Amino acid sequence: MIKVGIIGATGYAGQELVRILAGHKEVELVWYGSQSYKEQSYASVYRNFFHIVHADCKGDNIQEMANLVDVIFTATPQGLCASLMDEEILSKVKVIDLSADFRIKDVSVYEKWYGIVHPNPQFIQEAVYGLCEVNREKIKKARLIANPGCYTTCSILTAYPLVKEGLIDVNTLIIDAKSGTSGAGRGAKISNLFCEVNENIKAYGVGSHRHTPEIEEQLGYAYGKQFTLNFTPHLVPMNRGILVTEYANLQRSVTYEEIKEIYNTYYGNEEFLRILEKGIYPETKWVEGSNFVDIGFHIDTRTNRIIMMGAMDNLVKGAAGQAVQNMNLLFGLEESTGLEFVPVYP
Amino acid sequence: MIKVGIIGATGYAGQELVRILAGHKEVELVWYGSQSYKEQSYASVYRNFFHIVHADCKGDNIQEMANLVDVIFTATPQGLCASLMDEEILSKVKVIDLSADFRIKDVSVYEKWYGIVHPNPQFIQEAVYGLCEVNREKIKKARLIANPGCYTTCSILTAYPLVKEGLIDVNTLIIDAKSGTSGAGRGAKISNLFCEVNENIKAYGVGSHRHTPEIEEQLGYAYGKQFTLNFTPHLVPMNRGILVTEYANLQRSVTYEEIKEIYNTYYGNEEFLRILEKGIYPETKWVEGSNFVDIGFHIDTRTNRIIMMGAMDNLVKGAAGQAVQNMNLLFGLEESTGLEFVPVYP
Amino acid sequence: MIKVGIIGATGYAGQELVRILAGHKEVELVWYGSQSYKEQSYASVYRNFFHIVHADCKGDNIQEMANLVDVIFTATPQGLCASLMDEEILSKVKVIDLSADFRIKDVSVYEKWYGIVHPNPQFIQEAVYGLCEVNREKIKKARLIANPGCYTTCSILTAYPLVKEGLIDVNTLIIDAKSGTSGAGRGAKISNLFCEVNENIKAYGVGSHRHTPEIEEQLGYAYGKQFTLNFTPHLVPMNRGILVTEYANLQRSVTYEEIKEIYNTYYGNEEFLRILEKGIYPETKWVEGSNFVDIGFHIDTRTNRIIMMGAMDNLVKGAAGQAVQNMNLLFGLEESTGLEFVPVYP
Amino acid sequence: MIKVGIIGATGYAGQELVRILAGHKEVELVWYGSQSYKEQSYASVYRNFFHIVHADCKGDNIQEMANLVDVIFTATPQGLCASLMDEEILSKVKVIDLSADFRIKDVSVYEKWYGIVHPNPQFIQEAVYGLCEVNREKIKKARLIANPGCYTTCSILTAYPLVKEGLIDVNTLIIDAKSGTSGAGRGAKISNLFCEVNENIKAYGVGSHRHTPEIEEQLGYAYGKQFTLNFTPHLVPMNRGILVTEYANLQRSVTYEEIKEIYNTYYGNEEFLRILEKGIYPETKWVEGSNFVDIGFHIDTRTNRIIMMGAMDNLVKGAAGQAVQNMNLLFGLEESTGLEFVPVYP
Repeated sequence: MIKVGIIGATGYAGQELVRILAGHKEVELVWYGSQSYKEQSYASVYRNFFHIVHADCKGDNIQEMANLVDVIFTATPQGLCASLMDEEILSKVKVIDLSADFRIKDVSVYEKWYGIVHPNPQFIQEAVYGLCEVNREKIKKARLIANPGCYTTCSILTAYPLVKEGLIDVNTLIIDAKSGTSGAGRGAKISNLFCEVNENIKAYGVGSHRHTPEIEEQLGYAYGKQFTLNFTPHLVPMNRGILVTEYANLQRSVTYEEIKEIYNTYYGNEEFLRILEKGIYPETKWVEGSNFVDIGFHIDTRTNRIIMMGAMDNLVKGAAGQAVQNMNLLFGLEESTGLEFVPVYP
Repeated sequence: MIKVGIIGATGYAGQELVRILAGHKEVELVWYGSQSYKEQSYASVYRNFFHIVHADCKGDNIQEMANLVDVIFTATPQGLCASLMDEEILSKVKVIDLSADFRIKDVSVYEKWYGIVHPNPQFIQEAVYGLCEVNREKIKKARLIANPGCYTTCSILTAYPLVKEGLIDVNTLIIDAKSGTSGAGRGAKISNLFCEVNENIKAYGVGSHRHTPEIEEQLGYAYGKQFTLNFTPHLVPMNRGILVTEYANLQRSVTYEEIKEIYNTYYGNEEFLRILEKGIYPETKWVEGSNFVDIGFHIDTRTNRIIMMGAMDNLVKGAAGQAVQNMNLLFGLEESTGLEFVPVYP
Repeated sequence: MIKVGIIGATGYAGQELVRILAGHKEVELVWYGSQSYKEQSYASVYRNFFHIVHADCKGDNIQEMANLVDVIFTATPQGLCASLMDEEILSKVKVIDLSADFRIKDVSVYEKWYGIVHPNPQFIQEAVYGLCEVNREKIKKARLIANPGCYTTCSILTAYPLVKEGLIDVNTLIIDAKSGTSGAGRGAKISNLFCEVNENIKAYGVGSHRHTPEIEEQLGYAYGKQFTLNFTPHLVPMNRGILVTEYANLQRSVTYEEIKEIYNTYYGNEEFLRILEKGIYPETKWVEGSNFVDIGFHIDTRTNRIIMMGAMDNLVKGAAGQAVQNMNLLFGLEESTGLEFVPVYP
Repeated sequence: MIKVGIIGATGYAGQELVRILAGHKEVELVWYGSQSYKEQSYASVYRNFFHIVHADCKGDNIQEMANLVDVIFTATPQGLCASLMDEEILSKVKVIDLSADFRIKDVSVYEKWYGIVHPNPQFIQEAVYGLCEVNREKIKKARLIANPGCYTTCSILTAYPLVKEGLIDVNTLIIDAKSGTSGAGRGAKISNLFCEVNENIKAYGVGSHRHTPEIEEQLGYAYGKQFTLNFTPHLVPMNRGILVTEYANLQRSVTYEEIKEIYNTYYGNEEFLRILEKGIYPETKWVEGSNFVDIGFHIDTRTNRIIMMGAMDNLVKGAAGQAVQNMNLLFGLEESTGLEFVPVYP
């Protein structure tokens, strides 16, 4: 059994980790870290776990935790994981960080977009960006995984094969993204109240959302050169789900079959990526509660553009599910262990 | 492997059966019956099953099905299962009927509330009412299971111990129930359109809902004598979940601890029934996607009443989950096999 | 023009007052009081008012306000209005209090249910309970109006004629109420976050909700004697609307027409009360954005009970709309002035 | 009093016309046309109108109607209004068509995108495209108004000033639109059921939505030359509201102030268009129930693009409200008569 500790177990992503790991047959969850609810029963914070989780929340003593567990997940605000990291911990346990602290290789870019001084930039280089379908082999050998952001996972996977194959003009790439509200976390803010979100849709972080440089960096690796793009997130009145609608000019005339073939080449063997049939476009509800990313596309010959669409559960493949997928890779398990959720409908 | 066929696999309850059985390790699902979508790919009707279910829908030929499977689930409109039933089928396979056809022992009550002439009343007596926690031993030996209604499961289980112990005045029992919209099925009706249900709440079937006599009959068995009660369902703008709020006069002065002890006696060993802590009342979200029923209560000394509350996922414990629980009992499996879902939150 | 000041203009009820008064042709709104947003532009707090309201928020200096306006609305937490009240203010302006401070005549009941020491109980007796359809004549002559609570308005009006006529056994009266989330206010609390409320329903304040004694007191006046009842509120995932479902034993055998006639006698000339047709039950969406209360009922001969149902917009007739109706009465205007909203559908 | 008839009064747009006209002091609504509900009480179809509208639905006899009224609104499926039109009717009454039949000047484009043979193309040229803020003077003199589509109104108004001023590269213009579900109408279709729409977001009509050529034609007039663009609508789980997010490359370096000044020049005097403050982006909730379009923008110097955003209530400014605005212009009334709705929040 793999012994697991979580720092930040009472946020929505942390809670989803607990849900997934509760059904993971190779895992024993031994540390439910939560500074806010320390010493309270975990099931009193999330009553869905009543009769399932019997433990109390503990604090965030990573040194102590590192002596007890094999892997630590950090599902905490930006900067916290970075501040806790040191060589001793990494020598004892694997660390899978769900925050952005180790995702961006250029520390100055991180510091500019996040407005934080990175306390331990010396670990950034060794950290592996945990986008499993792209970096699988590197992940297996890593000590420190930078688990991708929710928007970025969906945005990158949707465009990746076409960017890598040079089929689209990357300088025309525009990503219009829509997310359920769980992506905003469980903080008590007026803007996230039911009455403010319900019956409403809005863009936010226009031109300034922190997932922008992360998407640019990773798609830049695929393309072979860095480029900029527009990324605009929107808040949708639903709990879970991300949909991205991506637009780009085609570099040359292509057929539906050519594009489909490229997606198949890259993703045809991927258990969690589903390339939809012709004329079918993804809906977030078809992936809810699962680790799938559904991808569809349309070639618009009138404008010579391709519209690529991807849908995903932001808390599963966009956070906790992908983190567990990374853990499975790190420990040599079947990659889908504990993640074979059939999407819940309706 | 238990071979399974479903008649009515493309309704919401049928679809939920497919979801649950897809993860049930002792089951092979070999017949996806759907008159409406016959010969269409099942995954084209419910795209959450893309890459998971590869079969096409078949019709409703129960004779042919009975030769191929060990158990048939019928998740069809009232009257259909009854019309298909005969001795030959019951001699070959187990039948678990999710409709109301075999739930009510007095055929005249059935015919009055449902406005249908029962085509095969001769099987009503042998049918076992599949409320697992109450009729477990009878279920194990049955050929034909009448799977309880959604409202009834939650309504009965919430009050059952106190009715049976004679602690409440059954003639004062009032059940005010609230359900998500999946309970209304997938029929294309104006009253179930998003714009009609969203931002709205209403009572319906006031004084005339068909689950009323079913609740009365079963609680009558517990009480030892038949009685009438009020049951009022409401439609809530959410997909899943049933909450019941039940009111009754207490027969004598009781303490919280006495009542709690009674619930514990009846349900303390039940895996799927959770008696909440003092002062905690059930919320549908805490059980979503799971087979749990959560129960709480409050004693109001001002009015000498007890308010009992129960919450449940109408498609799981209220339909497909309980049906699978019945199947597990019928085939001697661990009762919770395939049903260990952790509730999905948020 | 009537000059108006609001204390607590940036809560949901205060905001609804601003919306209604912005369209009231006899009113000039001169003071937008908000301790939290003092000196900020009102339209920056509620951007629906951009280009409509140009004023900034002011503080809560009631003495200064009393010199500038003819009527003050207080839409503030319990205890604040009571603490501000004195003879001088009441000698200068009319006060319409949307909090509970002056609703309950027995100060010990107020103090027990609200857990507050009432700072100025000497004004409780003169305060008129502002349920317009019941206390119209008294309201016209009042200085201080206790505007009824949202649940109470709907609960009382739905049962009032039958209680007053002695047709129901008041000791069996049970009120099961359901409210949209705007009733919980705009405070930043985890329990009111979108992800916690959406796809969820729960009871709260079971046996202890503060509107209970208010309903009991007012229906006690109608009945001629005080009695106790059960009132259970539920939180529904929608913004606006209250539905009450009320159960009581009938004192004698009655026909539908008799009951209908009684409702007509009491409410037939009331502009804002609509008694629905036979077999039609109220839905909150049919009254959204309006000052209507819709009422329907069903006689259950099986159980000798009547089920009465009422629906209302909690922010209009349940708060700001009724407050303006009271203001119209106080100033001798047509009672419906500024309140002729057609309900918004869908 | 202007006498008004509506053909298609029982669709959502027709119903919104009734709501608005019920409060319009210069209008008498004398014909509620509805083929589906002929001879039924209008208020039994939409119970929000109980006690407000007392008329029954009539059929669609436009000849008879033309003798009774001054203006006819048609809120009907594509093709119907066109089939009813003739010189005699236009000589008697004004016609405001909410369908697409007379919006597109090139009949072959209409016939291609709508798949309908236009029965009366001879009236297309004289029809005036009823986008009030753009075609005000022409509207005043028209007999036949082609009321713009919902998506098109919001899409065009958001980009119009910058297109007309040549500030953006129109060949890079991409419109990503999001709409509430009332835009899909009241037809009983599975895809519009509550359970299918709720907790879901999807794109639809990708590359093929019928509003595309309408937007292209109108923006082409502004630009002085026709061009193509991408328009992608999405279905959002809310009743009302459209948000458009539009992307285009800037033709030259511009400042925020320059762009703001251009919007002010075009829209500064427009009562229903609100240009938001710097850093504020539109939300559909801030305009709900009103005739406003809110517009905001962000200049992204990293990518040399501008992101323009517009929000609107699809049933008001996107349908019935704009239709009434057109009527006001046609009859020489104050343009905002009957349309001074304060947006309803929350």
